[in-house]
Amino acid sequence: MTDLPDSKPGRAHANAQRVIDFRSDNVASASPEIIAAMLEANTDTATPYGDDQLSAMLNDRFSEVFEAKVTVFPIATGTAANALALSALTPPYGAIYCHSAAHIHTSEAGATELLTGGAKLIPLEGDGFRLHASALANAVATAGIGIRNRSQPAAVSLTQATEFGTVYRLDEIAAIAEVARSHRLKIHMDGARFANALVTLGCSPAAATWRVGVEVLSFGCSKNGGLNADAIVVFNPDLVEDLSYRIRRSGHTWSKMRFAAAQLLAYVQGDLYLRSARRANGLAARIAANIAGIPGVGFAAPVEANEVYLTLPEHKIDHLIKNGIQFLRRAPRLIRLVCRFDGSEEDVDHFIATLKVLE
Amino acid sequence: MTDLPDSKPGRAHANAQRVIDFRSDNVASASPEIIAAMLEANTDTATPYGDDQLSAMLNDRFSEVFEAKVTVFPIATGTAANALALSALTPPYGAIYCHSAAHIHTSEAGATELLTGGAKLIPLEGDGFRLHASALANAVATAGIGIRNRSQPAAVSLTQATEFGTVYRLDEIAAIAEVARSHRLKIHMDGARFANALVTLGCSPAAATWRVGVEVLSFGCSKNGGLNADAIVVFNPDLVEDLSYRIRRSGHTWSKMRFAAAQLLAYVQGDLYLRSARRANGLAARIAANIAGIPGVGFAAPVEANEVYLTLPEHKIDHLIKNGIQFLRRAPRLIRLVCRFDGSEEDVDHFIATLKVLE
Amino acid sequence: MTDLPDSKPGRAHANAQRVIDFRSDNVASASPEIIAAMLEANTDTATPYGDDQLSAMLNDRFSEVFEAKVTVFPIATGTAANALALSALTPPYGAIYCHSAAHIHTSEAGATELLTGGAKLIPLEGDGFRLHASALANAVATAGIGIRNRSQPAAVSLTQATEFGTVYRLDEIAAIAEVARSHRLKIHMDGARFANALVTLGCSPAAATWRVGVEVLSFGCSKNGGLNADAIVVFNPDLVEDLSYRIRRSGHTWSKMRFAAAQLLAYVQGDLYLRSARRANGLAARIAANIAGIPGVGFAAPVEANEVYLTLPEHKIDHLIKNGIQFLRRAPRLIRLVCRFDGSEEDVDHFIATLKVLE
Amino acid sequence: MTDLPDSKPGRAHANAQRVIDFRSDNVASASPEIIAAMLEANTDTATPYGDDQLSAMLNDRFSEVFEAKVTVFPIATGTAANALALSALTPPYGAIYCHSAAHIHTSEAGATELLTGGAKLIPLEGDGFRLHASALANAVATAGIGIRNRSQPAAVSLTQATEFGTVYRLDEIAAIAEVARSHRLKIHMDGARFANALVTLGCSPAAATWRVGVEVLSFGCSKNGGLNADAIVVFNPDLVEDLSYRIRRSGHTWSKMRFAAAQLLAYVQGDLYLRSARRANGLAARIAANIAGIPGVGFAAPVEANEVYLTLPEHKIDHLIKNGIQFLRRAPRLIRLVCRFDGSEEDVDHFIATLKVLE
Repeated sequence: MTDLPDSKPGRAHANAQRVIDFRSDNVASASPEIIAAMLEANTDTATPYGDDQLSAMLNDRFSEVFEAKVTVFPIATGTAANALALSALTPPYGAIYCHSAAHIHTSEAGATELLTGGAKLIPLEGDGFRLHASALANAVATAGIGIRNRSQPAAVSLTQATEFGTVYRLDEIAAIAEVARSHRLKIHMDGARFANALVTLGCSPAAATWRVGVEVLSFGCSKNGGLNADAIVVFNPDLVEDLSYRIRRSGHTWSKMRFAAAQLLAYVQGDLYLRSARRANGLAARIAANIAGIPGVGFAAPVEANEVYLTLPEHKIDHLIKNGIQFLRRAPRLIRLVCRFDGSEEDVDHFIATLKVLE
Repeated sequence: MTDLPDSKPGRAHANAQRVIDFRSDNVASASPEIIAAMLEANTDTATPYGDDQLSAMLNDRFSEVFEAKVTVFPIATGTAANALALSALTPPYGAIYCHSAAHIHTSEAGATELLTGGAKLIPLEGDGFRLHASALANAVATAGIGIRNRSQPAAVSLTQATEFGTVYRLDEIAAIAEVARSHRLKIHMDGARFANALVTLGCSPAAATWRVGVEVLSFGCSKNGGLNADAIVVFNPDLVEDLSYRIRRSGHTWSKMRFAAAQLLAYVQGDLYLRSARRANGLAARIAANIAGIPGVGFAAPVEANEVYLTLPEHKIDHLIKNGIQFLRRAPRLIRLVCRFDGSEEDVDHFIATLKVLE
Repeated sequence: MTDLPDSKPGRAHANAQRVIDFRSDNVASASPEIIAAMLEANTDTATPYGDDQLSAMLNDRFSEVFEAKVTVFPIATGTAANALALSALTPPYGAIYCHSAAHIHTSEAGATELLTGGAKLIPLEGDGFRLHASALANAVATAGIGIRNRSQPAAVSLTQATEFGTVYRLDEIAAIAEVARSHRLKIHMDGARFANALVTLGCSPAAATWRVGVEVLSFGCSKNGGLNADAIVVFNPDLVEDLSYRIRRSGHTWSKMRFAAAQLLAYVQGDLYLRSARRANGLAARIAANIAGIPGVGFAAPVEANEVYLTLPEHKIDHLIKNGIQFLRRAPRLIRLVCRFDGSEEDVDHFIATLKVLE
Repeated sequence: MTDLPDSKPGRAHANAQRVIDFRSDNVASASPEIIAAMLEANTDTATPYGDDQLSAMLNDRFSEVFEAKVTVFPIATGTAANALALSALTPPYGAIYCHSAAHIHTSEAGATELLTGGAKLIPLEGDGFRLHASALANAVATAGIGIRNRSQPAAVSLTQATEFGTVYRLDEIAAIAEVARSHRLKIHMDGARFANALVTLGCSPAAATWRVGVEVLSFGCSKNGGLNADAIVVFNPDLVEDLSYRIRRSGHTWSKMRFAAAQLLAYVQGDLYLRSARRANGLAARIAANIAGIPGVGFAAPVEANEVYLTLPEHKIDHLIKNGIQFLRRAPRLIRLVCRFDGSEEDVDHFIATLKVLE
């Protein structure tokens, strides 16, 4: 089930019918709170390139959120956050381990290869679309550490929640970290949907990251209510200086940084990020709970965050499309639905009802 | 006067006095019109990665503005716009000619070297901080075209308005383009302050770009009222496909592209970009007109856009700082003041008065 | 059986016993004819960087050998030949398809990633350690051509003979080329053991390369009697200029090129390359013919060139080591023996006898 | 006098006259001693990739030569040696200071930019074609250390002897090293003509390198009697492991390394390198001593090693060409003559006589 193309969305017919959009969480609007914060940031002048007051607050605020001294770099996209974070974890001749379904491997156009100077991504298989400690251990064992013609094991990248909406348990990450530590691999977490995973895990941000060995986190915001900013959160202070230059030279240091900082501050203010994720996850759970048992409908992955992967017969897929349900087709009979923070129970119920019609 | 460091700004004392900020145009706020457009864009869902309706309008709208079929890529920063644009103009073994004061050479942390795969920037001297056709011709003549151990001439990058606030005349660009054409060099324009230059030239966007040979433009918006989006405007359609992949893999393709498109659409709507630039230029001209002749005060560059470079004795510099005037120090006796679209005549006059006090 | 580490060789005991070396063909000496040619080249002065007379003869002589106008670039190593050849076939955002056991993927320390500017190698499985047209077709079909977040299919690399000593049949390559052509992929052949494959195929160099769609060939010489030069042979003239700069800037253009040209000229003179490969292949065939049927001994790959991959019980492996037989261990029970142009029937027979002792 | 193109050599007429070749030292033959060593290396099998006995001797032998524990990497070309050495000294966002005439800057097709991942070469002017400590100090002072949009000072590269045949005095290097140390810059020496400089200095290899602060040396051999191998000599052991991977992945690790090791061992055996350089330097000194004072003939640089740069009127240049003297033209009236270890007094005297004819 790995390395599938992003098929074009099943588009709704252009009639007057209601359109219900499950294509992705990045089709969502921006949270009113985040919009408001950006407006509020728009006063007077501010020192550019992250030396403004809001940016200064970012590190403090996120250090509270993560219960540790962290450094936050707002970044335009998750792709850039991932590739830049990894560029600080590997030499150009390094190997980076990830699940074969990892976004960095399948869907970032070689960003990691570019920004690391040509490091090699090593895709590994793993049940539930999660990398397993044993698979990592096996891979490293045969990697040829110290052999000059081999890409040298340098880092591990975990997507949390995964690309298929599953969530790593903390002990799974800890086990991976144990393998990583014994071979001096560094751990990156692609948290494009980090908030969704946190809600599922019900643990603190600290427990989900540095306490289980994560050194740098791509902290998603765009998919969960942000406008156009994600972030890199660095737990290992040794990485900060090097990374700051890499970010600048890849063109990812905004001059008017306050408008990115404002988004991220609002995103964690009052746990907005968790509230938004809880809502999206809840919608996905509502789907899962109500379609289980429909003949011909299978779950391609357990529903643990805000994504629902279903296998359906073609006529059911056609029926959904005809009824204005939008989603992505990942394979001939495999569809993906993503629930959003700004989605509605009404839309979800309409989808469920539509799916049941043909039962 | 080339390759000077960005010195730390002369910061105002922390007393209650009024602070007047001439440090840069990127300390500015965002235009209300642009803010409004972003708010308006925040409705319902939208297809990600630039396949939304606002992004679709971008190409059409900018094609009208530039009186030619253009392709527009919103980009997070001017640094990224420059380096990515150049990456589509040169092979990795290419040479890119620019003025020695060019931002791409002095102040982008090697972004061009990174994103081109290691092309070489060749800084050339030129009066008025402008590259001259003759200097380019001389450089290319001795470059060793076809000689395998030489970086091969591939592109020219012109900053318009220049880093020192001067403006290329159209015939100067045309003369450069003539040299470029005869050696198959492609021309990039770094238009971080393109609108300011246009206002000075009083010509159309088309006349200032593709009609004088520019193939790709870094179209600045952030310094002139945008929040966090600039753009690459491509005049040569052959560059578009290649560039689109390069942009994506450098992490510069926003998922919620509509929020960038909205900014850029608002920026050109009703010639907002020209109105804003006219205001900033006007403030700079007001300074220039009123301080000429003050003893000890010299112009380090003619004031042709929104920047004022002055040479001052140290005691005058100290006096300005003490009176809450903020600016950048570029060299021991050289200061830079930048006027903003949201600056005021009052601030300008206060600066002038402060400067005159010590006459 | 893919991506195994180069285990340390089973070294012979340090007693007086005879040492028989099957570790690789790159442990071999240099052919007397090639040595002689280098000596002969050492007269008077010669224009550097490939503008000497011997280098000039290279293109002509190889054009005769390949029955087509070709350009030859002598290169220090096969790794460099592969990575540089591929760098001329793919944009930095390209995907290169190869077998999962391909040397470029497993054993070149990321050379291709470096010299292509970060292209992605896509390993595919295939029986007999060969890439199959159908696997390529499937991979390209799901690659997402035109989708901006995907590495774009650009090239195919085939190793001939393969890393496991098997040989592509011409119709297999033609079938791959058919798929490649329909998607505009370019074909590279890693011919580190090209001569060994040619001998097996019994066809002309032309028939094995450009006539079945190969555009650029890494032409091995070192493993088959050269001292320290391999070559890139370019069939597609459009690649030559670009490649010549890439070679120079990676430091692979010798100043005293005549000493490399001399090796390559001698290597093809009087079909030395085929005679040497025939001898090596013959030794491997002699092994294969005489050990078939020994209990506990299995062939991990068909013996089609000069390599023999065997599965053996541990005690037999120990016995070989104790008796001075040198080879590589590829996995717990998997060993590789490589026969050389300068190997002997006596050595081979000694190995066979040793293996049979424990029957 | 910087950044001149390698003009095509003034070629001799194709008549029967004697041709005297002063074009470069890389047009030379190989030393008989080095040839003999390569022949001797051609016995039996040898472990590949530098694990052979001759390679093992290299480190020991060079450690004796340099009176310190060094690591030696044989490399195919000086370009590769330079770029790879520098790649171990700078991050990709680093700045490397060199003289504006440095080969790495003018004549290596961007090799350093490629292999460092896009570091920036900063050319500085300096009398005698040497970088001066004060120029370096000034450059670093305005470089903007710690400012994120600036390439960060990382390394200095000195060419010894310089591209114009001048030689750094030890106290000059020590002064540069003092500046470097205070800013944590690392020092690379491009020693394509290191032996020629040593002869001039009359000091030990240690005194000329690590004792004055050099951390890594490109150790030239090809221009002074080698066939096709130069070397990187590493004084700082912390650089070794990183560099070993960089060398491998750039395709610069020969499989039959013994043939390179043999050359380098023979090159230092019995001080062959010094004897050869002494001979070449002596020929250059003979020219310098005998043409001083010829009307119209000027020295463009002091003759301190084996290169002679002369300014001549055009008719004298024509006269030389007509009389079979080969050399490079560096500018309209500027020619370069390089004396070789295998040159003769007879040739030198013929040149002198020819030059005097027109007096």
